[in-house]
Amino acid sequence: MNIMELLGVELPIIQAPMAGVQGHALAVAVSNAGGLGSLPCAMLSPDALRAELSAIKQQTAKPYNVNFFCHIPPTPNPECERQWLQTLAPYYIELGIDVHSIAAQAGRRPFSNEAADILDEFKPPVVSFHFGLPAPALMARIRGWGGKIISTATTVGEARWLEARGVDAVIAQGLEAGGHRGSFLARDISTQVGTFALLPQVVQAVKVPVIAAGGIADSKGVAAAIGLGATAAQLGTTYLLCPEATTSPIHRAALQSDAARVTALTNLFSGGPARGIVNRLMRELGPINSAAPDFPLASTAIAPLRAKAESQGSGDFSPLWAGQNTSACKEISALLLTRELVDLVSDAP
Amino acid sequence: MNIMELLGVELPIIQAPMAGVQGHALAVAVSNAGGLGSLPCAMLSPDALRAELSAIKQQTAKPYNVNFFCHIPPTPNPECERQWLQTLAPYYIELGIDVHSIAAQAGRRPFSNEAADILDEFKPPVVSFHFGLPAPALMARIRGWGGKIISTATTVGEARWLEARGVDAVIAQGLEAGGHRGSFLARDISTQVGTFALLPQVVQAVKVPVIAAGGIADSKGVAAAIGLGATAAQLGTTYLLCPEATTSPIHRAALQSDAARVTALTNLFSGGPARGIVNRLMRELGPINSAAPDFPLASTAIAPLRAKAESQGSGDFSPLWAGQNTSACKEISALLLTRELVDLVSDAP
Repeated sequence: MNIMELLGVELPIIQAPMAGVQGHALAVAVSNAGGLGSLPCAMLSPDALRAELSAIKQQTAKPYNVNFFCHIPPTPNPECERQWLQTLAPYYIELGIDVHSIAAQAGRRPFSNEAADILDEFKPPVVSFHFGLPAPALMARIRGWGGKIISTATTVGEARWLEARGVDAVIAQGLEAGGHRGSFLARDISTQVGTFALLPQVVQAVKVPVIAAGGIADSKGVAAAIGLGATAAQLGTTYLLCPEATTSPIHRAALQSDAARVTALTNLFSGGPARGIVNRLMRELGPINSAAPDFPLASTAIAPLRAKAESQGSGDFSPLWAGQNTSACKEISALLLTRELVDLVSDAP
Repeated sequence: MNIMELLGVELPIIQAPMAGVQGHALAVAVSNAGGLGSLPCAMLSPDALRAELSAIKQQTAKPYNVNFFCHIPPTPNPECERQWLQTLAPYYIELGIDVHSIAAQAGRRPFSNEAADILDEFKPPVVSFHFGLPAPALMARIRGWGGKIISTATTVGEARWLEARGVDAVIAQGLEAGGHRGSFLARDISTQVGTFALLPQVVQAVKVPVIAAGGIADSKGVAAAIGLGATAAQLGTTYLLCPEATTSPIHRAALQSDAARVTALTNLFSGGPARGIVNRLMRELGPINSAAPDFPLASTAIAPLRAKAESQGSGDFSPLWAGQNTSACKEISALLLTRELVDLVSDAP
């Protein structure tokens, strides 16, 4: 079965879920265009999740995907928090922020029975995961309403692990990809693999359909990924300038500047490695800093710096998530963009 | 003009020059197959260079490439050397080697008038460079015998720099590539780019033909690279098991093991970042260690450890250069392999 049959979509295009820069509007546009729109759910409260799902249901009858994280929340470590605040102290002073003003954040939640209860009301056709898979009982709940389950692999070992646990498809995420690495077995970012090398090796290693992600920006990229054995391509960065995305003006400006060519994996904004455009904080602390608390705890102390800097028009403390290929980002509707992504595919003999 | 016309080859395949694991035999086989065979010259003495070029001339009438480095040799720093020896001291003790036995090495030489004098006797049709370009006067000497000049870029900025200095083609080297990064402006390996993202951006940025390198292993990879705008593909790793390569038995065994899936950029073996299979030294010192002297000085103190360990059948201290995609490595003749690499290309409508 190919991925279009499996997911019920017309086009081999999945819009990557991107927490913080999109909600239902982008997902709806891509699904209505014939691709698979995705809703990032990891940062949504139960009420917000229900509201977003209601909006999708109202605005499209096509298949869509909801994405969750399934990390194990770390135990907060006061000594580690202290070191992190000490590392950030000069910035708090510079921006005139009281360290004691840091508010606890809702943060990123792993998939849970509570979330599954809400999903059950809407029965989303596809549920995708980052950082592995939830417990078998939670997966069974998704199967219960006929939902397909896909998850992300950054190594051949992770792809095999996911296949053994019954996923319907594997997303092979090359290191070009923007945002968080989906790694859950591989902890060493120095051995992460580019799409050109990862994709064919994952295709060789598993029997389930493989979705390519990372560095794919346009129809040529989609065709090349399919040529390397992918049954569909997942693209995120290339949608960031679409009006349906909620990408901030600061983030949009960065994406359209030469700075967008220089991205790195950083743990400063959440504690977990994620790719973004190199900005002042990444330059000054190094993109990977051992003082950052475990994912997702690092974000709490960054939030006030980010808010204050952004209020002054600066992205110095913002996660400017982007993949390594911003060359095709443009301000056109996500519907049109999705259609453009398959020009070469549909013209192929 | 396409690259085949430019270089006079029949196939859009360049065999990557790989110092230490091949000589004229591999280059001759690939050139005779219709691709562009390459001779790595950076580690050859003048006599050895002349001998290798004579062998090529005798064994093929087809175009071939000679590859040189053009780094600026660093000034040795005694304090840095001392720290490096101190870092390696436990291994010297373990292997029972006297630190005072370290011999000065010929090491890697940058392209020079002396080398150009020898080349002038043979007039190689193509000369490729790593780490930028030599001085204009040296480039003029190559032009003098009608030689084409190509060089490696790991960023859009490097590609533009090379084009501005008159190269005939640019090799876009994605971070999947094995061996030394060709970087010369970009010094930060955390921002190096995968082939899927680098290639289309370089194609967009320069007017000269672009050769894709990094993660390309088979005919599907070659076709995908061409689909992304490359006019030819440069492959190295995939040739390492060919009988015409001089890859050591230890290196061959590593390439055929599961270990080959885990590579990293390391500065331990030469001082400059290069991709190899993660082995004991890389695990224990970290793949990038600040104690390593500048390229190419780090190799001197590694050489005795490597020689002793290899004599005992161990690759713990050997640079096991490999790209991230070893999935298509096989023990077939380089001539047959080269022909296989273009199956899809020649069958394409």
